[in-house]
Amino acid sequence: MLILISKKSNIFYYVKNIEQDYHCKEGFITKNLLQDKNLQEVKSNVGINFLKFESNFYDECKKIKRGPQIITHKDLGYILARTGIGSKSTILEAGGGSGHLTLFFSNICKLVVTYEIQKNNFDLIQKNLDKANVENVKLIEGDLFENVENEKKEYDLLFLDMPSSYDIFNYNLDNLVKKGSYICFYIPSIFQIHELIIKMKDLPFFYLEEISEIILRKWRVKDKISHPENRKEIDHTAFLVFVRVI
Amino acid sequence: MLILISKKSNIFYYVKNIEQDYHCKEGFITKNLLQDKNLQEVKSNVGINFLKFESNFYDECKKIKRGPQIITHKDLGYILARTGIGSKSTILEAGGGSGHLTLFFSNICKLVVTYEIQKNNFDLIQKNLDKANVENVKLIEGDLFENVENEKKEYDLLFLDMPSSYDIFNYNLDNLVKKGSYICFYIPSIFQIHELIIKMKDLPFFYLEEISEIILRKWRVKDKISHPENRKEIDHTAFLVFVRVI
Amino acid sequence: MLILISKKSNIFYYVKNIEQDYHCKEGFITKNLLQDKNLQEVKSNVGINFLKFESNFYDECKKIKRGPQIITHKDLGYILARTGIGSKSTILEAGGGSGHLTLFFSNICKLVVTYEIQKNNFDLIQKNLDKANVENVKLIEGDLFENVENEKKEYDLLFLDMPSSYDIFNYNLDNLVKKGSYICFYIPSIFQIHELIIKMKDLPFFYLEEISEIILRKWRVKDKISHPENRKEIDHTAFLVFVRVI
Amino acid sequence: MLILISKKSNIFYYVKNIEQDYHCKEGFITKNLLQDKNLQEVKSNVGINFLKFESNFYDECKKIKRGPQIITHKDLGYILARTGIGSKSTILEAGGGSGHLTLFFSNICKLVVTYEIQKNNFDLIQKNLDKANVENVKLIEGDLFENVENEKKEYDLLFLDMPSSYDIFNYNLDNLVKKGSYICFYIPSIFQIHELIIKMKDLPFFYLEEISEIILRKWRVKDKISHPENRKEIDHTAFLVFVRVI
Repeated sequence: MLILISKKSNIFYYVKNIEQDYHCKEGFITKNLLQDKNLQEVKSNVGINFLKFESNFYDECKKIKRGPQIITHKDLGYILARTGIGSKSTILEAGGGSGHLTLFFSNICKLVVTYEIQKNNFDLIQKNLDKANVENVKLIEGDLFENVENEKKEYDLLFLDMPSSYDIFNYNLDNLVKKGSYICFYIPSIFQIHELIIKMKDLPFFYLEEISEIILRKWRVKDKISHPENRKEIDHTAFLVFVRVI
Repeated sequence: MLILISKKSNIFYYVKNIEQDYHCKEGFITKNLLQDKNLQEVKSNVGINFLKFESNFYDECKKIKRGPQIITHKDLGYILARTGIGSKSTILEAGGGSGHLTLFFSNICKLVVTYEIQKNNFDLIQKNLDKANVENVKLIEGDLFENVENEKKEYDLLFLDMPSSYDIFNYNLDNLVKKGSYICFYIPSIFQIHELIIKMKDLPFFYLEEISEIILRKWRVKDKISHPENRKEIDHTAFLVFVRVI
Repeated sequence: MLILISKKSNIFYYVKNIEQDYHCKEGFITKNLLQDKNLQEVKSNVGINFLKFESNFYDECKKIKRGPQIITHKDLGYILARTGIGSKSTILEAGGGSGHLTLFFSNICKLVVTYEIQKNNFDLIQKNLDKANVENVKLIEGDLFENVENEKKEYDLLFLDMPSSYDIFNYNLDNLVKKGSYICFYIPSIFQIHELIIKMKDLPFFYLEEISEIILRKWRVKDKISHPENRKEIDHTAFLVFVRVI
Repeated sequence: MLILISKKSNIFYYVKNIEQDYHCKEGFITKNLLQDKNLQEVKSNVGINFLKFESNFYDECKKIKRGPQIITHKDLGYILARTGIGSKSTILEAGGGSGHLTLFFSNICKLVVTYEIQKNNFDLIQKNLDKANVENVKLIEGDLFENVENEKKEYDLLFLDMPSSYDIFNYNLDNLVKKGSYICFYIPSIFQIHELIIKMKDLPFFYLEEISEIILRKWRVKDKISHPENRKEIDHTAFLVFVRVI
């Protein structure tokens, strides 16, 4: 995928097909210009200049098709860093949502296994994975809770983003998550964290290690101006609960 | 490394050597108990119970020896997620500091190349990498700026955490960073971001894409209590500046 | 002024004239219902119920006519609390903007003197003060800097919200602000705070006591839901700089 | 009260008695120097210079004797601004704690009535009010809930900072708070806000208007440095719940 940034409007354009001219509201750019690898700057037919460069993985993620609210980069990054995940790790995830976390971890880890119970979300994730040519994801249409017994691999992270995710504690989790590793719950409301804690009560071998919230604050700095953006795109997404498996 | 959590005090103990008894202020645990892989809970000689489990990569990172201020997980995670780094990526970093970012990215990426100009920091990083048995890091004692011409590999990320890091723009960066990828500056003060922007002025093929700050807020939830921690361990670390290379 | 809150939509309606029926998009309420002091709840002609009550000073402030960006309640409250202002205090303000701070302090203090250099803002403030029947404000069309010598009263607070407000240090401020009291600067950008500090350099009898930012986070709590609002109306307004006069 | 700021250490010293020399760890200042009103700068016997000026109300508040955690200025200011309180307002408060809110509102309002059930807190508040020479506060040792019927004045604000403050809804509040005015609850935990909301359910003439949290972020700006303080003195104090009485 190519990216064009208009030097007039600062708008980003994502060009998927360079076998044809690209049309946007700031004119069109010929396929010859698009295909020329030596050009870092191109001009549209109406004389507007664009910076031109190859997309990276971050850009690809931004262009995934969205159904349910996606998990944002501020949260993805902290989940990964806080749980010590790396290139040799295996992840078990439910539910998949739009597949943003799936895609993110697939770019890093050895294996991501994703359960998604809703047919339309399942199809959406499949489409997003296909588009990104991902091979190390096992996508399963179904309910993780009904399959806990089958998942006899010891994962390095169990990530849960689903209603009543704390019902996971109703199941026998032996051998599901490696000892010393984490279950990470993605939970929108404080109230549900209280429910989780009640559920965990008297379970001897789970340790609630951290409840966190990640806040991203973007800044505007230019000439004599320097201040946080006046409005945030988003303030609250969810709380992250890290439970250690012992 | 083993971890013990006291069920009385909630203190974490890190046990590096299980060939001998482990002594702490809550008594000692015999090496027999430490070595028994089937035990999830052990008792010290004075009758205090401890949860017992294997450390993960997050724990290993926490135990690195520190010289300069380390880059925290909230920032590491976002740098990775925002720049689209994955298991196939290569990173160029200067300066290395205590090696926390080095270690973090080495767990994820194909290659990390780290420049560190100060001898004592260089030795510290080397020690931390050795302890973690890391093999995909190339640690160089020296000044990145003097070696820009030699680094003719196209990196997926150039990360700079050093005074006057924006002087990088004095050098010919052709072929140092892959087109479409990022230079990420770790900058403590707004004032320095103004200096960076002045430096970037009229450079046609660098695009300042985002200036961000990541805020981590830990919560305390228990019984009828639910509120942010009254005091933060840390509020401000640094601003993250993402510049796209075109 | 009466306030009606629709029990269907939760919308607030502000009724200035109860001598006539009040029409809104949820029907109309007759003047008889509006005038009946014993009714806490009234019904519109289409059967929608409204809570009904008298406005307070907060509501009146919300309905002022706005030209320039107003100073928000989160900032007004902290300015007052941090500078120790009370019912016997006198305030000197420049420039007046829309008169929101003027109105706020006039409700609390003995006297507010406000300079506003722009004719249209001056008229707007005058209109807002008239509507609120305020008597303890002296509104002056003109430049405070040109009148520093005339203002020979010792104020308890000098509040400055204007471009290059730090040029106040060019003038002889003897007897303008009571010793031990504050000049409070309302400054949108960090860059300008650097300019202020350069300006203050070597002035022996001004002490920079605090630079703060007030962040208001609204929460949504209902049934099993409890989280910060997903989006903020506003994140950044300005920084508050408190300089003590000695 | 006089304030001295050491020009060497930037420490603030509060001098209550100027009839004698003032001794501190940076030497002593003679009473002659302290009493001379024309001096803005004085020198201690060991040659250290101090800025010297009269305290204001903010300073007096900072020096009150503390038992329970005081309500901070960031919260006090917003409570006042958000509820539209002014010089003609009357406030009813329970419990009084250390008397910080009492003192703050007494400096602004016509009357503050404060209930405090604990004898030692009651004595502390009395001492703090005496020291500040406050005359418009009526301090009552006792339980507000048992006296709701006696308080037949219509207050402009009912402020509650006590355990289970939402039990106020068990009582007949007619004529306690002016219609259109607020009850403000100071509540440390989200859990308790859920309890409050359950309590309010089906009460027709109370309207939950806002749940907020005020965050104060102090900045350090100097020379080429500009960033938030690395550590906050305090992050979380309490949530503020504003309920409109109809």
